[in-house]
Amino acid sequence: MAGNSFGKAFVVTTAGESHGPGNVVIIDGCPPGLSLSVDDLMGDLNRRRPGQSKVVTQRNESDTPEILSGVFEGKTTGTSIAILVRNEDQKSRDYSDIQDRYRPGHADYTFDAKYGFRDYRGGGRSSARETVARVAAGAIAKKILKEELGAEVLAYTKQIGPLIGEVDPNTVTLEQIETLPSGEPNIVRCPDARIAAQMVDLIAAVRKDQDSIGGVAEIVARGIPAGLGEPVFDKLKADLGKALFSLPAVLGVEYGIGFKAAELRGSQNNDIFVMEGEGDSKAVRTESNRHGGLLGGISSGMPIVFRAVIKPTSSLSREQRTVTQNGEETTLITKGRHDPCLLPRFAPIGEAMFALVLVDHYLRFRGQMGAKAPGRSST
Amino acid sequence: MAGNSFGKAFVVTTAGESHGPGNVVIIDGCPPGLSLSVDDLMGDLNRRRPGQSKVVTQRNESDTPEILSGVFEGKTTGTSIAILVRNEDQKSRDYSDIQDRYRPGHADYTFDAKYGFRDYRGGGRSSARETVARVAAGAIAKKILKEELGAEVLAYTKQIGPLIGEVDPNTVTLEQIETLPSGEPNIVRCPDARIAAQMVDLIAAVRKDQDSIGGVAEIVARGIPAGLGEPVFDKLKADLGKALFSLPAVLGVEYGIGFKAAELRGSQNNDIFVMEGEGDSKAVRTESNRHGGLLGGISSGMPIVFRAVIKPTSSLSREQRTVTQNGEETTLITKGRHDPCLLPRFAPIGEAMFALVLVDHYLRFRGQMGAKAPGRSST
Amino acid sequence: MAGNSFGKAFVVTTAGESHGPGNVVIIDGCPPGLSLSVDDLMGDLNRRRPGQSKVVTQRNESDTPEILSGVFEGKTTGTSIAILVRNEDQKSRDYSDIQDRYRPGHADYTFDAKYGFRDYRGGGRSSARETVARVAAGAIAKKILKEELGAEVLAYTKQIGPLIGEVDPNTVTLEQIETLPSGEPNIVRCPDARIAAQMVDLIAAVRKDQDSIGGVAEIVARGIPAGLGEPVFDKLKADLGKALFSLPAVLGVEYGIGFKAAELRGSQNNDIFVMEGEGDSKAVRTESNRHGGLLGGISSGMPIVFRAVIKPTSSLSREQRTVTQNGEETTLITKGRHDPCLLPRFAPIGEAMFALVLVDHYLRFRGQMGAKAPGRSST
Amino acid sequence: MAGNSFGKAFVVTTAGESHGPGNVVIIDGCPPGLSLSVDDLMGDLNRRRPGQSKVVTQRNESDTPEILSGVFEGKTTGTSIAILVRNEDQKSRDYSDIQDRYRPGHADYTFDAKYGFRDYRGGGRSSARETVARVAAGAIAKKILKEELGAEVLAYTKQIGPLIGEVDPNTVTLEQIETLPSGEPNIVRCPDARIAAQMVDLIAAVRKDQDSIGGVAEIVARGIPAGLGEPVFDKLKADLGKALFSLPAVLGVEYGIGFKAAELRGSQNNDIFVMEGEGDSKAVRTESNRHGGLLGGISSGMPIVFRAVIKPTSSLSREQRTVTQNGEETTLITKGRHDPCLLPRFAPIGEAMFALVLVDHYLRFRGQMGAKAPGRSST
Repeated sequence: MAGNSFGKAFVVTTAGESHGPGNVVIIDGCPPGLSLSVDDLMGDLNRRRPGQSKVVTQRNESDTPEILSGVFEGKTTGTSIAILVRNEDQKSRDYSDIQDRYRPGHADYTFDAKYGFRDYRGGGRSSARETVARVAAGAIAKKILKEELGAEVLAYTKQIGPLIGEVDPNTVTLEQIETLPSGEPNIVRCPDARIAAQMVDLIAAVRKDQDSIGGVAEIVARGIPAGLGEPVFDKLKADLGKALFSLPAVLGVEYGIGFKAAELRGSQNNDIFVMEGEGDSKAVRTESNRHGGLLGGISSGMPIVFRAVIKPTSSLSREQRTVTQNGEETTLITKGRHDPCLLPRFAPIGEAMFALVLVDHYLRFRGQMGAKAPGRSST
Repeated sequence: MAGNSFGKAFVVTTAGESHGPGNVVIIDGCPPGLSLSVDDLMGDLNRRRPGQSKVVTQRNESDTPEILSGVFEGKTTGTSIAILVRNEDQKSRDYSDIQDRYRPGHADYTFDAKYGFRDYRGGGRSSARETVARVAAGAIAKKILKEELGAEVLAYTKQIGPLIGEVDPNTVTLEQIETLPSGEPNIVRCPDARIAAQMVDLIAAVRKDQDSIGGVAEIVARGIPAGLGEPVFDKLKADLGKALFSLPAVLGVEYGIGFKAAELRGSQNNDIFVMEGEGDSKAVRTESNRHGGLLGGISSGMPIVFRAVIKPTSSLSREQRTVTQNGEETTLITKGRHDPCLLPRFAPIGEAMFALVLVDHYLRFRGQMGAKAPGRSST
Repeated sequence: MAGNSFGKAFVVTTAGESHGPGNVVIIDGCPPGLSLSVDDLMGDLNRRRPGQSKVVTQRNESDTPEILSGVFEGKTTGTSIAILVRNEDQKSRDYSDIQDRYRPGHADYTFDAKYGFRDYRGGGRSSARETVARVAAGAIAKKILKEELGAEVLAYTKQIGPLIGEVDPNTVTLEQIETLPSGEPNIVRCPDARIAAQMVDLIAAVRKDQDSIGGVAEIVARGIPAGLGEPVFDKLKADLGKALFSLPAVLGVEYGIGFKAAELRGSQNNDIFVMEGEGDSKAVRTESNRHGGLLGGISSGMPIVFRAVIKPTSSLSREQRTVTQNGEETTLITKGRHDPCLLPRFAPIGEAMFALVLVDHYLRFRGQMGAKAPGRSST
Repeated sequence: MAGNSFGKAFVVTTAGESHGPGNVVIIDGCPPGLSLSVDDLMGDLNRRRPGQSKVVTQRNESDTPEILSGVFEGKTTGTSIAILVRNEDQKSRDYSDIQDRYRPGHADYTFDAKYGFRDYRGGGRSSARETVARVAAGAIAKKILKEELGAEVLAYTKQIGPLIGEVDPNTVTLEQIETLPSGEPNIVRCPDARIAAQMVDLIAAVRKDQDSIGGVAEIVARGIPAGLGEPVFDKLKADLGKALFSLPAVLGVEYGIGFKAAELRGSQNNDIFVMEGEGDSKAVRTESNRHGGLLGGISSGMPIVFRAVIKPTSSLSREQRTVTQNGEETTLITKGRHDPCLLPRFAPIGEAMFALVLVDHYLRFRGQMGAKAPGRSST
């Protein structure tokens, strides 16, 4: 049953395989009047693009999207927006090595168990190639958040292997994520420049070793007003959690103080409410942000801060044991071009999923509350 | 917009506040012919019940459910099942202390920001009281999993504060979770009896200190066949992640190796496929289970193992600083009866949410695949 | 799979059988701050109530609802509202006559074909008893339409058998529907008083004949601004059509000129746009309303006018041939108390479904469009 | 909010405008293993195609679809299927005549009222051009019904203006709908050949008169087992009703005896249950089919028979009065190529929507009931 749609008010539906003709996304529920062109999508598509640097896969795709509907004279019309990104680098290579062997860590076996067979070319629907459609939709969501709320969503590499960057989610900028102080591109997207350099070296070493390495991404949304989210099942943390867990290779998600809360006492963990600002801009804030911007599943007006752990790429150029579809033991070397580490290209993907959830809840808020703006209580 | 429903094929909708007349759940999509009575619900409702031991809140509720529809002559009819659990312990106490003050760590401020006002009695809809409806629905889901798939879902306390139990998710039993080797009730629900005793002492110390303490719960589903879950947005990990994040106080969720994956290499992390069993029962398995039973978001047939971190209870009997609705700084002591630690009562709640997701995906599998059973490839 | 919920932004979920403990509805997505009490529900529940006059079933139910959640100090909180209406007249009569025989025109056989068995007491879930839950929800929807848009929804009996009332949907009032010019209750709810009297006589004759009779209801919504509805699948006509077809015994639905359009030419059928009013209240209108207030599936600002044909009650006190569950031919007399004609009690039910759709689309409009009010173009 | 998706288990999402690059449909939930190619889609797309005969619009589109995903080696994979049909005949003509004038009977004014502006080229999203996406999806749905249930769905022209064909829905064939006894194409798709000839003449006369004409289509599904549909909101009649009402120009829908039920008594209307067949094929049937194959909203195993009334095309080549966006009275002649009557091209569109609903409910049945086949009670 339908698992290719996401969202309730801002609904994104995707289709597409790694080695088919292309990937498609339909965005349903976009407000009318938003200026939108292919240029608005290219920024994030380029940040996600394979082949962009030496630390990522060398598969080559231009990932130029075609907007098929929902935009007229440069503005969204309010009707469904379809975007197509064609696959270009579909080398007709020989897949006989993986056709009947289950790659460790991949969805080959589980797809067979579910569907009875699978499109084995490059992982088919289970390939991370599908995230290109999410990024296109996410670029629109980010634009709405910016124009309607003045909010922004940023993701960056927090950790790769043992290397942990020091980054302040309250102040980090897109510039720091994308560019080093030297002006060079920040190809691992860790805003801590010193650690970023070490990460580049680590990835090079791992790749040379025919291996891969995991890491942690941090995602922050700033400028989201208090009041978004639902109290029970559709808590904002639940929908954001689902959004990140829906991404390939994510094995864990936490927000605010996260897993460290296990060892804290309530008196250490509670964030104290205080007033901030003067006059009209006087507002309720918390002294600290261990709650990660969410209380009772609803945004508090503080920065929303999540972390996702991403496993090391499963495809390895070294030999691994496995079994065939017929149940015979065998070995496998995954040929082809892989990311030795998924973190460098994760930022635009994580931002996209985050932004989709936030826009969805923002439109849901408007629907139920009408003219009342989020974050302003009636008194 | 509607955030009080959960699931697509097995849909649960809840309503109810902490201090209103009661909590209601409607379960839509239950297969017909399942034997069901109030007794089937009482086991888990009693495990969740306040007042059950010295380590939990002393609020007193019998939590006896009334089945209002969907069952005829002891069997589900296939039509929607409504269950009502009345609130009994609605002391008409004075709430003026919290009526206009924002309790730290609670949803008071965010509810005001969202709705403009709130039912302040005991947290209203944001109270964990609402989980009583989830547990009633979850008991039905667990029964379906058991009868149709022979599967079971178990949750238990893994960690409280610095105390970490040693538990094998592959073999742990409900008996171990509920009862100590001595035959006494295992009131903290940690199957490691030695650590369980220390946890009881820790909670007593914390309570005496007018404080609270966090912890980690582990949830395992065994007997789930390979093939459940959807490839993209509705990955099983995504829906299980959302399910756990939708629970009060959960700040993080991980499965399998979880956050430890950040430091691993692919060659260390990948689980190798092997064949297990003989003849008809020969099946694909993995040598290890760092993937936590899910590959590409679809079940692999291995035990599905998740962990959720649960923050220390926000309500404290000690004084905390905060602000009022009118923006004045003040202090607050939360009166009333609170759990000093949420872990002991978490098990049935975590199991419920887990089971709801698994049944939902099982019915979705049947819908799309028809007669084909999950886990059996066509060859 | 879940078929007991209705709506996307204003979501209604129901449960309950004819002879179980009661009927429940959960309303999810109601805006906060609406004043609401049991009194607001009683008006329509009384109009629907069995036993209210000599032309309806003599089954006796007080139909007093209990609001279980979602209302605090007389106002909706924005969280889910649960309402319970208990069944009172559950005579423990002998159902052995219909337990294994299929009543013609009823869902007995189709329920068995679907679920394998059924709650045969009074039709179980297929009984029109379930509409009590819809009417409770509809009363809330009507209140929102009135308070937010100044709109109203009215349904009335247009035709019973060969008797057709002359009613102007543009001007008809609730007073005319409920009360005769004489001050007596209008028990058939046909605003054409002369025809109403004949209808009463016709129903009496039919009942005496141990028979039943069909008819047509007309439903009008006035004051709905232009701009509600979606262009493709969720056209307002599609959702209103579904709403009416979801009611028991409805065999056909039309709006505006309806089936008469088959014989018209475009030049006869098109409604010409004109300007009406002066200054600020100047607005686009159509000279005629053959389009029934909907163009392209979106409201035009003109009254929305639908008609639904309702079949004669299937339960007859006279003998009818049928078969048993075991495939033996037999006969059947449906004992018990039935409406000889469904039209007199239809008005509040039809209004409820109509209002649910309109509120749903109104909230959906607000979600997508934000501050922009429906019906006002940007120029 | 999202109105461009249809269905719950077999979910169709569309996008596309009349004069944009193309129309897209994503089909989510299709069972795996169905053989599928462009050829499977061409039959119905050709039946819908403009320019196919002298009685339809002369707009010229080849309507060749491209399958972008979800099919591998000629079989559906169970993942989402995306299909693109490019618009070819996007004449860059001058639209200044309709850019700021509201065409009577069209959605121009209501789109402006809803969205604030609109893509005015050929109606944009409100153009019947969007049905090309529905027909592509419907072709897949019809294939599933045929292969899994041996069922078929047929639609045909029942009436145009005063001309009413005599057609038996129990026996009518696709051959009769598409081809005259003479072997010539049946360009109006009325299986009553004598009336069909008169319809051709009537349409010619109407076109010469710069006018258009309405009509009635009948849609029948045969071979649908008893047991599909849901008891309350998602009655099969409700979803089929919505499906037909979601199509452009449909002003009314009825099934079985339809609006004639208003004048019938219960004793005249009830269909009597009888046994038919022998041995294993012995089954419950009704002597007559006034109930149109649906009882209590669930299929009875008898043919499901609906009728939809379709208004005369709103676009007229003759002058009509109207108003401009600025509220000035003016006149308008709709240039371009229009169908003088919508019935001839309606058949594949009506069949598509019918089939989508039936497959959706069939998959929903499987999900809830599992191995039990529809139509077989447990006894």
